[in-house]
Formats: sequence, C-alpha cells, structure tokens
Amino acid sequence: MTDSIDTFTLAQGFRAAATACGLKTSSVMGASSLDLALVVAEGPCTAAGVFTTNRVKAAPVLYDQEMLTRNAGGIRAIIANAGNANACTGPRGMDDARQMAALTAQTLGCRPAEVLVLSTGVIGRHLDMHKLAQGIADLSSPAAQHGAPFAARAIMTTDTRPKVSRRQLDIGGQLVMISGFCKGSGMIHPNMATMLAIITTDAIVAPELLQAALRSAIDHSINRVSVDGDMSTNDTALLLASGASGVTIGADELPAFTAALTETCIELAKQIARDGEGATRLVEITVTGALDESQAHTVADSIARSPLVKTAVHGGDPNWGRVLCAAGYSGAAIDPDKLSLTFGLADRPGDNDSPAVQVVSNGLPTIYDQRAAAATLRSDPVLITLDLGLGDAWATVWTCDFSAEYIEINAHYTT
Amino acid sequence: MTDSIDTFTLAQGFRAAATACGLKTSSVMGASSLDLALVVAEGPCTAAGVFTTNRVKAAPVLYDQEMLTRNAGGIRAIIANAGNANACTGPRGMDDARQMAALTAQTLGCRPAEVLVLSTGVIGRHLDMHKLAQGIADLSSPAAQHGAPFAARAIMTTDTRPKVSRRQLDIGGQLVMISGFCKGSGMIHPNMATMLAIITTDAIVAPELLQAALRSAIDHSINRVSVDGDMSTNDTALLLASGASGVTIGADELPAFTAALTETCIELAKQIARDGEGATRLVEITVTGALDESQAHTVADSIARSPLVKTAVHGGDPNWGRVLCAAGYSGAAIDPDKLSLTFGLADRPGDNDSPAVQVVSNGLPTIYDQRAAAATLRSDPVLITLDLGLGDAWATVWTCDFSAEYIEINAHYTT
Repeated sequence: MTDSIDTFTLAQGFRAAATACGLKTSSVMGASSLDLALVVAEGPCTAAGVFTTNRVKAAPVLYDQEMLTRNAGGIRAIIANAGNANACTGPRGMDDARQMAALTAQTLGCRPAEVLVLSTGVIGRHLDMHKLAQGIADLSSPAAQHGAPFAARAIMTTDTRPKVSRRQLDIGGQLVMISGFCKGSGMIHPNMATMLAIITTDAIVAPELLQAALRSAIDHSINRVSVDGDMSTNDTALLLASGASGVTIGADELPAFTAALTETCIELAKQIARDGEGATRLVEITVTGALDESQAHTVADSIARSPLVKTAVHGGDPNWGRVLCAAGYSGAAIDPDKLSLTFGLADRPGDNDSPAVQVVSNGLPTIYDQRAAAATLRSDPVLITLDLGLGDAWATVWTCDFSAEYIEINAHYTT
Repeated sequence: MTDSIDTFTLAQGFRAAATACGLKTSSVMGASSLDLALVVAEGPCTAAGVFTTNRVKAAPVLYDQEMLTRNAGGIRAIIANAGNANACTGPRGMDDARQMAALTAQTLGCRPAEVLVLSTGVIGRHLDMHKLAQGIADLSSPAAQHGAPFAARAIMTTDTRPKVSRRQLDIGGQLVMISGFCKGSGMIHPNMATMLAIITTDAIVAPELLQAALRSAIDHSINRVSVDGDMSTNDTALLLASGASGVTIGADELPAFTAALTETCIELAKQIARDGEGATRLVEITVTGALDESQAHTVADSIARSPLVKTAVHGGDPNWGRVLCAAGYSGAAIDPDKLSLTFGLADRPGDNDSPAVQVVSNGLPTIYDQRAAAATLRSDPVLITLDLGLGDAWATVWTCDFSAEYIEINAHYTT
C-alpha cells in the first residue's frame, strides 16, 4: 500500500519518536533538523539484520552484529542518529555505540543488549555524547515528536524526502503487517554513510526464519540499487518482529512472508534510487534470458553502474551501444549475437506509459523510431530490458540518471 | 623523451600519413577533421596486439586477432579510421574490415593479410566504404598529410590533443627506438569506441617476445587507466617491430626492452587520463603495502572508479572517508586498522609540488592541516597513496577528476 508520509505507521506493537539534538550541522541539515530516532517495541522482539559488506565497518555495524549473534530473540529498541556515522572512530567509537545503547536502555528500563544502534553522517569524527545523551532523554519526554513519520525524517541526510513502505499479508485469514522506512541517496555525501532501513512486523517469527526472509528480501531489493557504485561503511537493514498480531510465520508461511517483505523492500529500493543525488528519474534495468540469476544480476549491475549509460538516460539519448558495451564488460557469459535490447515497456513485469522500442535484435541495431526511443528515456521510470537470449533467468536493478547536479553536490563541500 | 607533437616521429623503418575522408561527422569532429591514418613499414615487421576484453568486440578487433594468429611475423601496415567504430555491425562489418585491409594492401602492393585495421567512433553503423576507398587511395597521393603528427591527430575522437611518446634504449652500445601514439578520452562518446595505440620499434624482436613485452607494458600502463570505468568494444594496442636498427632483442634483452616499452606506454596512459572527458587534473593513485600486486591493483582501481572520490578531487575536498570506503568495498583483503592515507608527495615514485599530508594513520584520522590537504587535491597531478600495511606489493593507476563537464559531454548528444 502507498502511504502518505503523514499517515504512515509501524506494525502493531511498535511506537516511534524523534528529536533534534544538534548532531546535524547546518551544512548537512538536509530536509529535516530531526536527527535522532527511536523505534521501540512493547515487549521483546525477534530481530534480524543485514549489513554492509564493506571491509571498513562503522562501530554501530560491529555492535549490532555482536548483539544479533548474542540476543536475536530479545531486542526491544533501535536508536538511530543522523549527522555522524561513527565510522573510522576506533575503540572510542565502539565505546560510544555501546553508550548509545546503554543510555537508551536506561530510559526504557531494559538491558543494553536489547537495544540496536544505527548511525549515518560524517565519517571520522567522534559522536558528541553530551548532545546524544540529552537527545535520548528528550525522546521519552513530551518535547519529542512522536510517531513513525518523524522517525522516518530523523534518519535522513541528503535525502530529499522520507521513504516508507507497508504491506499487509493474509495468512490463513489473519492479517500480518510489514512496515518499514529507510534513508539513502548518494552512497556517501559529505562523508555521509548511507543506507539505513528499519522494518517492523507484528508477526511471530523465529530469529533464524526472520534472518532468512530479510536476507532474501534485501538481496532482491535494496542490494539491487546502484546510485553511484559506492558502498558505505554503515549500510544496515534491521527487521524486528513484535508478534503482536498473534500470527505465527513457520516454514510453511515463510515464502509468502518473504514475498511480502521483498515487495516492501522493493518499494523502499525504488524510493532510494529515485532520490539519488541529482537524480531526475528512476531507471529500472531488467536483464532476461540469462543462464542463471547471478549472471543476470551481474549484467544488470554493470549497466546500472555505467556513467555513460546514466548520462545518456539523463540526456534522453538512446545510445544503445553504451548498454551493450556495459553488458560486454560485465564479466558475465554473453553472446553478442544473441543480445536484444528494448527501451520502454517490454514483455516484462512493471508498467509504463511509454511504448516499447526495440533498438537491438540479435546483436544488430533495428531500424527504429529515434524520437520514440528518446521518449522512452525521458519517461519516469525509464525501463531498459536486455535479453541475453541464453536461458530463462532474469534480474532487475534500480538506479537513476546521472546529472550535473550529482557532481555539484559531491564536489563542493567545504570542510 | 618528451616530444613536441610537431617533431614527433616513428621508429626507423616506418612512415605515416593521414587524410580527411569524411567519416567524422561535424558533431564528432573533435580537434581535427583528419579521420584516416596509415602507418606503413618498409618491409615486413613482427607484430603484437593487446585487445579489449569486452565480450562485444568490434569487427576490426576480431579481424586483427585473426591476422596476428596467422601472420604475426609479416605485418606491413596499419590502417586506422576515426568517426565510425565498425562495432555491432555483424557479418557486413567483418567484410568491411577485410575490405579496408584489402584496399590498403592494393595501394601498398602487399597482401591483405599484411595489413591490420583499427576503427573508432560511432557504434552500430556501417562504414561508408565509398568514402573509405577514396581516403585510402588519397593516402598514397601528395594530397595526404605525411608524417606521424598527422596520423596521431587523425585517430582522435573526443580527445582534445594528440598523445605521443618515445623512448630510446641502449642495448650494448646500440640504440633502439620505441615510439608510439594513441587516442582515448572518455571510454565511449557519442557512442565512440575508445583506446587505440600504435607503437613502433626499430628493434628486431621475435613475435612471441614482442607479444610478451606488449602484454606486460599495457597491463602496467594503459590497462591501469580509469576514466569512467567503461571499457570499449574497440580498445586495441598494436606494436610493430621493423628491425631497421639491426639490434636484436633476445631473451636477455627483453627485460630492458619491456621496461622501456612500459615507460613509453605509461607516458601515453597519463596523457589519456589527463585528457579524460571533462577532466581538469591527472590523478595518480598508488596502493602500497599490499600482499600482492593484484590486490594492490584491485584496491587502487576501486578508488579510481569511485565517482565520490573523483568529485571530491574535483572540488579540492580532502574527503579521506571516501577513499577508505572505496578501498573497503574493493573486494581485496584489507585490515581497516592498518590503513594509512597520504595526499600529495609521499614516500613513493614520482614527484609533485605539493608536500605530503598524511590524513589517516592506522585506520584513524590524523590531526592535519585542512588547507594543506585541500591544496594537494588542487595540484596537478593529484597524488593519492594508500598504504594497506600488509605487505610489500604495490600498484599505481591513473584517472582524472570528475567534473560537471563530463555529464554535459555525455548527456547532450543529439542523434
């Protein structure tokens, strides 16, 4: 379901609050001065997490990985700040992450091990623990902004809008809610760490099933977003299950639950891609006809990362040679003589206003209408479908066009 | 040695000519209307070639690979055109490449198998063989522009200047010349295929030794250039050895020959990086302290490909977090706590006006002078040295900064 941000709520059993504690400096204020968010459950939740694969991991990533290893069956809350990533901060950064959890636990009357921590913002600076302590105290006061819409805004950095998504799932006549929000636009800006997602459900799900569902959902959604190819030190997706619906997701229900969770995460993924730094359009790249999904993903990702493809989309230029070229160097097994490329709506999932224009068939350019092809690249979303002609596997990735504004945003940061 | 372009010559035993036959359209004219170049040897040469690894290979690439398999001991000439890449052109494209060689052989009085072919330009359009035939005929007439400087200009597409390099090598008191030219700026623009290099030497070198030398030289030079991460369908480096010096390069002399050839190619590589589309500065990234050269190269390449690093350089912003982040996701084995990062001249090969500023030591930011650090990123070349602290291996890659002009160049192409 598509929520207006103002009516957005979490799943049953959760509440959220936000406050502005001054961690965001004016130069990185973004669209909201809120910079501290709390998501708290009425009781212990099962929890799952998917984290950055960057070898340089921020302190909260290391902290949460440790907590989920020890205590995935009993998480109560997530405390998240924007403005400072607490990355490249050494042992003191780890102490600060622990302290964030401890301060939050204190106000909630739970154990520190029941609190997970998220941070996003400038790299290489220590958290101002004084401001943070005040902010955490404020979150349980009437001075805080209560409600999920405020929490969704508080974790934003260069995002131009909050990103939320909900899905309802029918399990044998009983309803389960999945509801989440996220942030992320450029991968890091001004030294910002990027993608944070907080997802809640009121289902009862064992930790290992919850982890499997989240892993699969993120791999098919947020991990298929490419804004600029940069991967952050802080990327984290957390999923808490409160059990408040009374509906149990066992092995039999897991596929349906995972599918709904994946849809929720795809909605979030599209919002991230569309809100890429300097982006003007969402670009959805689907590679079909691959020998396996991994190969399809490799080719789609190579196309999505190509600055030449993304600038061509920005200019509305049907430069199909750039797409084939990016496919060719992806490293995947392709046969140039079997490639077919279509701009706009093709025989594939999704819908779009612009009719399909096939520009390449079996490796050779077709005789196509240049203006119609250009129109497909000016529509939103832009749909690019490359058929490898080798098998039945497919994959979709999401990205955005590449505008001069991206350069402006990322070049002109005064320290 | 650094030549002025006007005094640039090939090695003994070679001559060059160029003409304008109308393959370059006005929109892709670049800095020269010359679009057809011929390099011809007095007698048969040994020859070596290194080609794009893109799975989508242009017709001339496939043609040259075939000729070098059959006839690497007897190549007489290279015919090269700009304006049309003869890529994604199917069987007719292969026929056209063969015809280019045959027409050239006819004017030179040699066999078609003695002629190699290079093309760069728009992808997916058939060569105008009528114009090309006229151009090839003109090359042996007084109407042609004779001399290597003209050939170096004729292969340019979006390059803003010709790129040439020469080295003299002393082999037991006898001199050997290595001299080459190349083109390449953005990887493809407007649907342009990219890097072409033609290198000549007057040494006597057996084909297998010549191939080994070229492979090593290109791998340590032009294959370490990253302008935008895109790899073309046409990238080709060819090396012809005329033997005119009478000096034989055997196994004993091969290391010295390869070293000189590598230096020549590094000079060309730097010229390519500095002339990247929209580039304002050459950026030289050296990764030291790696376990092996391959890991060093992987990390350096990841940094060089990061749009966030390249925009930070453009803005003169010492955003060291972006460099560490790109190292972290490179896939190489790194230990975040052992990373040290220096901007400007460090304890490494090369020289630069800006003094070194170490910004990270053992994974943590140092207390450094922000203005001095920013100054290192505004110097040319910009030197970035990341010490992984793990071993003794190192690698250098070359790239350029990323400016808004890159987007302008690549987005606004009217078909």
